[in-house]
This record gives sequence, structure tokens and C-alpha cells, in this order.
Amino acid sequence: MPNLTRVVIALGGNALQESGSPATAEEQLRVVTKTCETLADISCQGYEIAIVHGNGPQVGRILLASEYAKDVTPAMPFDVCGAMSQGYIGYHIQQSLRKELHKRNRHVPVATIVTQVVVDKDDEAFKNPTKPIGLFYSKEESDEIARDKGFVMKEDSGRGWRRVVPSPMPKAIVEVDTIERLWSSTIVIMCGGGGIPVIEDGEGGYTGVAAVIDKDLAAERLAEAINADILLILTEVEKVAINFNKPDQKNLSEISCDEAKKYMAEGHFAPGSMLPKVKAAVMFAESKPGRKSIITSLYSANEALKGESGTLIR
Amino acid sequence: MPNLTRVVIALGGNALQESGSPATAEEQLRVVTKTCETLADISCQGYEIAIVHGNGPQVGRILLASEYAKDVTPAMPFDVCGAMSQGYIGYHIQQSLRKELHKRNRHVPVATIVTQVVVDKDDEAFKNPTKPIGLFYSKEESDEIARDKGFVMKEDSGRGWRRVVPSPMPKAIVEVDTIERLWSSTIVIMCGGGGIPVIEDGEGGYTGVAAVIDKDLAAERLAEAINADILLILTEVEKVAINFNKPDQKNLSEISCDEAKKYMAEGHFAPGSMLPKVKAAVMFAESKPGRKSIITSLYSANEALKGESGTLIR
Repeated sequence: MPNLTRVVIALGGNALQESGSPATAEEQLRVVTKTCETLADISCQGYEIAIVHGNGPQVGRILLASEYAKDVTPAMPFDVCGAMSQGYIGYHIQQSLRKELHKRNRHVPVATIVTQVVVDKDDEAFKNPTKPIGLFYSKEESDEIARDKGFVMKEDSGRGWRRVVPSPMPKAIVEVDTIERLWSSTIVIMCGGGGIPVIEDGEGGYTGVAAVIDKDLAAERLAEAINADILLILTEVEKVAINFNKPDQKNLSEISCDEAKKYMAEGHFAPGSMLPKVKAAVMFAESKPGRKSIITSLYSANEALKGESGTLIR
Repeated sequence: MPNLTRVVIALGGNALQESGSPATAEEQLRVVTKTCETLADISCQGYEIAIVHGNGPQVGRILLASEYAKDVTPAMPFDVCGAMSQGYIGYHIQQSLRKELHKRNRHVPVATIVTQVVVDKDDEAFKNPTKPIGLFYSKEESDEIARDKGFVMKEDSGRGWRRVVPSPMPKAIVEVDTIERLWSSTIVIMCGGGGIPVIEDGEGGYTGVAAVIDKDLAAERLAEAINADILLILTEVEKVAINFNKPDQKNLSEISCDEAKKYMAEGHFAPGSMLPKVKAAVMFAESKPGRKSIITSLYSANEALKGESGTLIR
């Protein structure tokens, strides 16, 4: 692998919090520090990296606190909660990654850019919101909220009623100019949580909307926009598998985009889990000759970049 | 004034929220949009600008919601609340400023950088914390918190007991490398709320601390670090005054650093209000020949840059 290969790394939820551990900031910082050991090792191999991370549990808790405290201070809209989560998680990653790089005697600046990601207001997803966010309510409270605020509310797994928001496709990254300027000199943390979703306001500007953007698809947009060589999607498993969790499970080391599409059509990958990752991987690998995607676990990332682990999609 | 003069602009609280108006995100966005008309006008005059903003009311409310909701989701440490406020406010400014620039047919990227600011762990301020933050508690609750968490608690204006944190001097900006790279091409929003306060951890890294950094002093650090020409501190009044609010009030159009120091020593400026602004202005004007500081109101900023309003400190 030559030096200065450009890699966009999409971090899964387990890079920020271990399942079953408390959802405190202190615990997140501990896990992020471990994650940053891997990221620093990748940087030391000579790769130019940019980092995208998820924010599902974090933005959920920010919204939860905000809604819960609404009688003492006004609740924040969901786009603002997303911006807050970018500050929170970006701060931890930039602090920890700088420290791990320093330990390795590598002095590269690290910075988080607050990022807006444009979605199409006519995206089909707006007609059928599916992502539950925030507090659970009773049927009566839920009807009142739907009436007062115009939110779409749905019953969620027998636990009560919750607001649902759409998950539209990311179209473009508003702050892409900035990362283009920084990319070659700085490790940039961008598009946190898939980015703050905004729509065009018809006057050349953007307006925030309540929506959730898939962070792997946002990372794919970023990787294309900045002409990266590799999209590296990190998750809980070392390799993508077909017949997952069945007796005939088969782990995949290398697949073509056509094979990946066939497996997607056959329903091998869970929606909201492996499916968007494979979809993002295929989109990137198909976007230009020479581009490739890798899906693997955080702790196999270094081996996967050497071709010794993970699932390569090309 | 020649083109490409570099100006660091420190925005006061009234640039984000009007006094007496509701503390909602929607209202902040409305006020920020007005503020960004002024900032866009300054940019259109050919100045290279960087923006620093306060976060007092915002971080206070984030902490309030977080503490209030602590039984449903873990409360966030104060440094994290600061990072969240940078995401929140930065998002609004970058969205609004881009829109106002676009209306003026000026296409300059705008981006918020999450910023850590280094303070000295031996700063005298840590021995005497003075800044109240978060919820009010009864004496009993307060004693329990002091015992359990080691927080310093003080009685606040007869309304109950509150945690107090120190307000140390800013020493350095961790992400200064990044703004140096962006400065000439991008309007950067940095050091929000004075920056997330961190101390050196003795291993070449930094650790967040619960403290409040004065945003005007942080803006001064930034202006020195990036070799700005002008530090423009925007507040509620058009000019700095001596004998403020007395029959013999005298507004100042231009003062030397020595005069400013004399007035400070005579107690003309209120601590926590005009005093840190004048202090920051003097520090910057004295830091290198040719540098100057201006203190004025948001709406006199353009005139002040032309020398037709405000108080010039040189």
C-alpha cells in the first residue's frame, strides 16, 4: 500500500460505547481512548484519514434530557441536538486522538468540523418517517403532541408512543470546501451522526430539519466528495457474512459490487444494520475505478487495510 | 483600510439572544441571523474574519437540563456541556452567515471548529472558584453534593446554593494549527464560550476541567496566535465610558493602553462585564506594534472599523 492513501473511516456505535456499560461521558471517553489507539496506528501507517462517527445513543440522550427538562428550560429541536452531539463526540475524539498520536511521536493536527448535510425535501423518506426518537408517551399525550406540534407519532414495541422522523439519503455536505482545504494536513472529524440534516431553503441557504441520516451513507458522500481511495466502515464483526447466524453462515473476504447487490437483493443483510453499510460500500466502490470499500471490525482495521482481514468490496 | 486586514471578532451575549426574549433555539436562530447580516457586511468589506462567541446562557441551560434529567440519563460533565454549546451555537452561526454571504454574492466557506483552550492547573483561579453554574440546591443537598462529588458550593444571592467553578486565564489554543490553515480561505468560528477548558495531563495530552474561560480573553489569545491586525470586541454599548451611568459619564473614542490601564486601576469598568473586555483589548494592542483593538456595539461594528465609531485602543 503506497503512502498517502486517503481513507474515510466510518466508526460504528461500539467505537464510542461498549454495550452494557453506563452511558456516561466518562465511560465514552474511556472507550474513545481505546478506539483512538487504532485510529492513531492507522495514521502512523501513512494513511491520510478523515473520521465520521455515529451518534444514535448520544443524540437520543441529549433529546431525552432536553424533553424531560422542558418545564425548566425550553426543549431543543432535533437538528440542534444533533449539532450538540457533534460537539460532544468530536471533542472526545479530537482530545483522545491527539494524545494517542503524540504518544506515537506523530504530530498531526486533529479537528472537528460541525457539519451540515443536505437532504432532498422531496425524499420519499419524508412521506414515511420510521426512526423513533426521544421520550415514550401515552396514547393521550402522543395525540396531543401530534396535534400541537405536528410531529408524527408511532407506537414503539409495546413500550408506548414515540415521535418518528424520516431517514432521507444524504445528497451533499455543506462544509465540504473546508475539509478539502484541511484534508492533506489535518485529521478531520466530520459528518458526526451522519451530519445535521438540512434542506435547501430556496434562497441559496439551508434550514435544519428533524431527520436522521445514516452515518455510513454520509461517510460515502464525504469519501466521494474529497476523492478518497478507501471507504473503511468499522462495525462489530470482522467480516460481512451471508446466511448470518445460521448453520451455513459464510464469511466474505472479497466480493464484487455485483455479488454484493445480489446478496442485498436476497435479503442477507439486516436493514438498519449491515444493509446500509454494504449499500454505502457498493456506492463508493462503483463511483470511480480504483476506489474500494472495506467493512470490518474496529480491532481488525489495521490488518484489513493490509488485505489480511475484513471484507473487501471492489 | 487596506484589504485583507485580519480581524478576530468577539461576539457578546446580545449577538445570540436579546434580553427578555425566550431562550429557545428558534429565537437564537432569529437573533443570530440578524447578527450575521453585520458579520457578512464586514466580510464584504474585504476583511478576513474569525469569530469567537460567548456561551454563558446556553451552556447554563444545557447543564440545567442535564442535571434536571439526571434520573433518566446520566448528567454530563461541564466540559462536555461546553463542547455541546459550541456545536449548538456554531451550527446556527455557520448556517446563517453562509446564507447572508450568499445573499451578498460572496461565496466564502464558513465552518465551526470544536476548540479546546489550555489553562494552567496552577492558575490562582482554581484556589478560589467564583463562577456559579447549574441548578440551585438547598443547604442539605449542597452539602451532600460537595461531599459526594467534591464540588465547591456557594450560596448565591439568597436563592440557594450552587456549584462554583474557577475562571482561569487562557494560555493557548489546542487547535490553533487548524485555524492557521483555514484562516485565509474560510471564516472560522472558534473558541466558542472561551473554549473547552483543558489542562496539560503531563503525557503530552490534555484533560477537560470544569471551568469558565472569558471569551474576550480567549479571543485575544486567538488574535495573537494567528497574527491578526484587529481585535474587535462587540458588546451592548457603542463606546467604552468612564464614570459609566454617572452625570459626568464620558464616552471614549480613542485611548492608549496606558490610559486604559489607568482607568482600569481607578475601577471604571465592571468586573465580569467591561473590565475583561478592556483587559483583552489592552493585551492585544500591546502584544505587537501596529495591532489595535476596538470595543463597540454589534450595530456600530462596520462604522467602527472605518474609524467612525467605537472605542479604539492602541
